[in-house]
Amino acid sequence: MGERPPVLEIYDTTLRDGTQAEGFVLSAQDKLKVARRLDRLGLHYIEGGWPGASPRDQEFFALAAELSLATARLVAFGSTHHPDRRPQNDANLAALLAAGAQTTALVGKAWDRHVRALLGITLEQNLDIIRGSVAFLAAAGRRVFFDAEHFFDGLAADRDYALAVLAAAAQAGAAALVLCDTNGGSLPEQIKEGTSLVAARFPGLTVGIHCHNDGGLATANTLAAVAGGARQVQGTMGGMGERCGNADLTAIIPGLQLKMGRPCLPPERLALISETARYVREQANLPPERFAPYVGTSAFSHKGGMHISGVEKDPALYEHVPPEAVGNARRYLVSDLAGKAALLNKLGQWGFDLDGDDPQLAELLGELKQRENEGYLYEAAEASLELLVNRRLGGRPAQFFDLLGFRVADYKAAERSDPQAEATVRVRVEGQEEHTAALGHGPVNALDRAIRKALERFYPRLAEMRLVDYKVRVLAGSDGTEARVRVLVESGDGVNRWGTVGVSFDVLEASWQALGDSIRYKLFKDSAG
Amino acid sequence: MGERPPVLEIYDTTLRDGTQAEGFVLSAQDKLKVARRLDRLGLHYIEGGWPGASPRDQEFFALAAELSLATARLVAFGSTHHPDRRPQNDANLAALLAAGAQTTALVGKAWDRHVRALLGITLEQNLDIIRGSVAFLAAAGRRVFFDAEHFFDGLAADRDYALAVLAAAAQAGAAALVLCDTNGGSLPEQIKEGTSLVAARFPGLTVGIHCHNDGGLATANTLAAVAGGARQVQGTMGGMGERCGNADLTAIIPGLQLKMGRPCLPPERLALISETARYVREQANLPPERFAPYVGTSAFSHKGGMHISGVEKDPALYEHVPPEAVGNARRYLVSDLAGKAALLNKLGQWGFDLDGDDPQLAELLGELKQRENEGYLYEAAEASLELLVNRRLGGRPAQFFDLLGFRVADYKAAERSDPQAEATVRVRVEGQEEHTAALGHGPVNALDRAIRKALERFYPRLAEMRLVDYKVRVLAGSDGTEARVRVLVESGDGVNRWGTVGVSFDVLEASWQALGDSIRYKLFKDSAG
Repeated sequence: MGERPPVLEIYDTTLRDGTQAEGFVLSAQDKLKVARRLDRLGLHYIEGGWPGASPRDQEFFALAAELSLATARLVAFGSTHHPDRRPQNDANLAALLAAGAQTTALVGKAWDRHVRALLGITLEQNLDIIRGSVAFLAAAGRRVFFDAEHFFDGLAADRDYALAVLAAAAQAGAAALVLCDTNGGSLPEQIKEGTSLVAARFPGLTVGIHCHNDGGLATANTLAAVAGGARQVQGTMGGMGERCGNADLTAIIPGLQLKMGRPCLPPERLALISETARYVREQANLPPERFAPYVGTSAFSHKGGMHISGVEKDPALYEHVPPEAVGNARRYLVSDLAGKAALLNKLGQWGFDLDGDDPQLAELLGELKQRENEGYLYEAAEASLELLVNRRLGGRPAQFFDLLGFRVADYKAAERSDPQAEATVRVRVEGQEEHTAALGHGPVNALDRAIRKALERFYPRLAEMRLVDYKVRVLAGSDGTEARVRVLVESGDGVNRWGTVGVSFDVLEASWQALGDSIRYKLFKDSAG
Repeated sequence: MGERPPVLEIYDTTLRDGTQAEGFVLSAQDKLKVARRLDRLGLHYIEGGWPGASPRDQEFFALAAELSLATARLVAFGSTHHPDRRPQNDANLAALLAAGAQTTALVGKAWDRHVRALLGITLEQNLDIIRGSVAFLAAAGRRVFFDAEHFFDGLAADRDYALAVLAAAAQAGAAALVLCDTNGGSLPEQIKEGTSLVAARFPGLTVGIHCHNDGGLATANTLAAVAGGARQVQGTMGGMGERCGNADLTAIIPGLQLKMGRPCLPPERLALISETARYVREQANLPPERFAPYVGTSAFSHKGGMHISGVEKDPALYEHVPPEAVGNARRYLVSDLAGKAALLNKLGQWGFDLDGDDPQLAELLGELKQRENEGYLYEAAEASLELLVNRRLGGRPAQFFDLLGFRVADYKAAERSDPQAEATVRVRVEGQEEHTAALGHGPVNALDRAIRKALERFYPRLAEMRLVDYKVRVLAGSDGTEARVRVLVESGDGVNRWGTVGVSFDVLEASWQALGDSIRYKLFKDSAG
């Protein structure tokens, strides 16, 4: 009693199991960006992919050599060797070693029904495969986490066999036994009971839990496993994953830490969880989750006079945890008063020391609210916000040039020929007008090239800068091609990276705005030196 | 032992608490339609609204007189009388009686902190208000379900007082005591313990449970309450509700019935739950939930060769319940990891009876793999796949027209003026070439209008069709505006909805492909009749 419980290990599999979700697609480059953010959040393990099953995941591990993670260890995932091969000549195990990660997750079958029906081998042969695969990786110097697939179904069907599978992995040198509810259908009581049984039986090893959400119980099942003795918690950001998804770390970590008193992350890191959740979805071009526990945009929104006056008197009357603890914000849906504190904070960072009553602040807030209603999203485009603030509050010069107009023509002459895009632009720099043109691969690229061509004459350092990412989102779902679009551009110059935004009913005009801001921000930062 | 447990009462509050969700709006007419479907599903109670707080809900109850429900009873919701009034002259209670429903839900405060901070009255006065309000409704011949707001927070803060609140309601004639986790932050153990305490203390009354999902635990909390003795289960379809939503009946009912052996609905009614969930969202103009447990469109979807061949051998290997039990369907996703089995299955659905060794199959698989590498994503664009398959395997005609070429011009004349977009297209239908032009809001819209204009002359039924959604995704993150883009288009004609895809380095050409397929699919389906 009174002792502080040990910190739980958080193991994220967004980049591997998460990408099995329908419509959740990340490139190798996206995965690197996500890995950096998960590391910043303070997670302990990041499962990067299955190199033996996907060339994209091999590419990711090759690129991951340049990731220097501060808190997290990268894990490569793979399966036990093929029944017809030996560990030494199994391609999947070879790919696992080649990935270079010091920690490997190895999945093997723990349900007799699967061994018989799917592998078509004897139960004893399956144990041999598990022993051989674990021992092979351990002998190669890898730390092995053994994922016992369908463990809880296996335990219910043939208890002795499910435990024998774990014993085989343990005996061959596994460092952790991860109990998987692969079909996602177990109930919390079952999970708790099964986990305590394993924790008691294998006291020297870390017991992990890996749940799926087919019964809508993945969060509860994970908490139940921790109550039963699990010390490693697996899941994905936002619960992405195949079918109904994996256990959702954005609900589980706050639940463990704020409600069960089981520390996972330092409090200042926990406060990054909402923005991390949104960042991950943004990489896959998905809008933020509205109704997600803790991190959703509606999670702390209040409607109706009684709720709002109640929260003003005493937030605990209508909030189960303080939104700041998870980096989320209270929102009032009727009269939105949120944002002021956040904006003052940002202004301070940028060197503007404004008073809370300053009329300039109210004016700026009004303009931002208006622009956010139009679809500008400054969370992912802080460079555009910083430029706007400098213009409005009379900070350093932030304009540099005016974009006067463009004409873009895109011509596909015949069914089998590629379209040709040409853009002409007019820009003005210090009173001089420049009118030029460029071809491109598609209309957006032509526009981008023409703008740079026009401006590089005046600002040669723009040659250092490149576009890192370009995203388009159609706003307000149901009006088809007439809807408003938001373009987010990410740029870099080898030192910094920054995001800018444009919104219009016209995808080219939205791109024009975002590209203009991205170049302005480069000039703005360089001029500070 | 061996006795069949009594059927649980299912109480739906989609039409009242559910409509507190951001973005979930139902008219009085929509509510009538939803009520009919919930009745057909076999639910026992339908809470129709709060007549004392909303004129729309008064209108609903006035119209509801014409509803003839077969299994469900309609419930009107209201709160205890205002501290400054008496039951006889309280407008809220009067509206509750005027609504005409025989069963009324009456909410009162069960957490001392709320009584003091928000009502600003003594704890004893609150008990008087509860007694007076319940007795008033009971004397008017109403059956009263007492909703104990914040019951679990109240129980934790002042156990005796929370129980005294229930005793006051019971003594005044309440037929049910509904325990509410209003802030949604309780854990399953707490809920189970609190519920068993109440069930033991008030053996003659029905104990109900009403959870919110702020901790991601509403489903687990509701199941825990039933294990603790609750007999009435409250929730909403799809978990709609304020903040993170209410308990989701579409996950809870199958969980209770299929996993805990607690009957809620006759099995043939349970099989209507998936279509009912989709119907409710459709009324609010929301797309079906993808990842929802049991009823989501992805809930029984399988990716990957091993999963698919496993399910073909023995569905229980990868499915926690049979999809038919909840009226859902198994789906095989055509994806880069999938193989032959998924494609053969799809081909079968489309009437192509191919052998696994057929060289046409290998050829088609090769082409699909190639196209998926280029970025075509058929998961969300099955209509494009069906058209392709029909072309390749010589099924029904699926071409209808050829898109020959386009020219799109987008001109922004000055800084403050909106851009003007114009598209010209050339199409060929049965040997005739049509060359026409259209203006649009942005270049994609102009292209869409021009294509339709050219084709509607030949196919007047295209006027029935509309674009429902348009999505752009830039593939392979790191090449900026030069990257390849994928356009997904969703279209509908009032009867069906379908998705199509286009991929190009040029966003307009990708749109051109996806728009062309979306029109072809409409003609293809119509020609089947």
